[in-house]
Amino acid sequence: MSKNTLKWIRTLKDRKARQENQMFVVEGEKSVCELLESSWLINNILCTNFFLEKHQNLIQTYSQKQPTSLLLLKTAELEQISQLENNKMAMAVVKMPPKVLLPPQKGFSLYLDHIQDPGNLGTIVRIADWYGLSDLFCSPDTVDVFNSKSIAASMGSFLRVHTHYVENSWLESYPYRIYGALMEGKNLHETRLDANSLVIIGNEGHGIRPNALSLVQTPLTIPKFGAAESLNAGIAAAIICDNFKRASF
Amino acid sequence: MSKNTLKWIRTLKDRKARQENQMFVVEGEKSVCELLESSWLINNILCTNFFLEKHQNLIQTYSQKQPTSLLLLKTAELEQISQLENNKMAMAVVKMPPKVLLPPQKGFSLYLDHIQDPGNLGTIVRIADWYGLSDLFCSPDTVDVFNSKSIAASMGSFLRVHTHYVENSWLESYPYRIYGALMEGKNLHETRLDANSLVIIGNEGHGIRPNALSLVQTPLTIPKFGAAESLNAGIAAAIICDNFKRASF
Repeated sequence: MSKNTLKWIRTLKDRKARQENQMFVVEGEKSVCELLESSWLINNILCTNFFLEKHQNLIQTYSQKQPTSLLLLKTAELEQISQLENNKMAMAVVKMPPKVLLPPQKGFSLYLDHIQDPGNLGTIVRIADWYGLSDLFCSPDTVDVFNSKSIAASMGSFLRVHTHYVENSWLESYPYRIYGALMEGKNLHETRLDANSLVIIGNEGHGIRPNALSLVQTPLTIPKFGAAESLNAGIAAAIICDNFKRASF
Repeated sequence: MSKNTLKWIRTLKDRKARQENQMFVVEGEKSVCELLESSWLINNILCTNFFLEKHQNLIQTYSQKQPTSLLLLKTAELEQISQLENNKMAMAVVKMPPKVLLPPQKGFSLYLDHIQDPGNLGTIVRIADWYGLSDLFCSPDTVDVFNSKSIAASMGSFLRVHTHYVENSWLESYPYRIYGALMEGKNLHETRLDANSLVIIGNEGHGIRPNALSLVQTPLTIPKFGAAESLNAGIAAAIICDNFKRASF
């Protein structure tokens, strides 16, 4: 692998370069191992000798299914290309899955309106995976799920939860009840929650924007017993999923 | 304020220096404003002219109650002393409140066993505040709540939730039911939850340690509907608080 390839991998920290190449980077021992167990297309594996020896079987099994390029690096070299702190073992350059235009679905869904923090998005992908949602819907300007920080925060859940960036028209034609997580709505603990429905989670600082807000049929509020002004978007998403899934018992 | 003072403020990023001085640093516009509205003792305020003009009344009202030292800095100077990214306005050096040995309490409590990430701890302080817990209990080796990152993540909730670092003997003599958040326990949604009780949340990577684990009377599990291996400690704490507070309706 040439210097140019390493330089190219470093460019993938930008969303535009990821889009153009349809490639993104997965980092860290655990995530790369989960990837090797999946059927996703790995373009390059970059790892230390230690990782190679520890996970030889996994790498071999994967290579027998799909051709991939393997490069051994020293830890210091790996840290130089890495987009994260504390990646001392492995990274992979991965082909993005083909985009699918998914129509609104039965069951319970989440829609994120302009979530900006990649860590928050990754955390919500992990929560969606815990609560068995196979798809997650976002406004087109929500942060890219293939950002290294989102991938890391998802702890491998990006392999199971598909994140779709959908236009407002998708939301406008959603056929079931639309709830919104808002500061002054109906008490989440005391409201009968529809099994086929979608909850909109707003931006970290500004909440749900007017366009999406106008589509909310039932505003919902997580009951507050103390004095904190708000909850972080990931925490709110988790509590909402827990309440909707409990209701479906 | 001399160069030595600025140097001293920078040392407060270390827990040992914070302990010796019984001082810690609060950063950012919103947190410093909340602090000025509180009765906590502020040793120094360091801010830009913009902050001073915007919050003149707040600063004046505070100074009339308590003497404090004010230093105007340029944004670039402030960023140099700051322990966080993106602090462009204000920081304060604050006296730690006196330590209180709090006996086990009635009602619902959380106990953190060796939480290591300061962001997670701050998030849990914010959640505790949302759910009306006035006190939070931790193992002595849990990360310091006066770490800048914990303070920032708490979004001002450190002013209302008191974090106590208690010895194992405190937990051993806890008189009500002790629950533990574990991977294989009773279903949180289907278990009758005692109003007077405590839930132990374990370390991010290793869970609850044997000492604390041996005190757990009822293991509890957040029901999983999908495939994620685990939930982050802050997310788990939030879902547990929500379920206990819902039960107290």
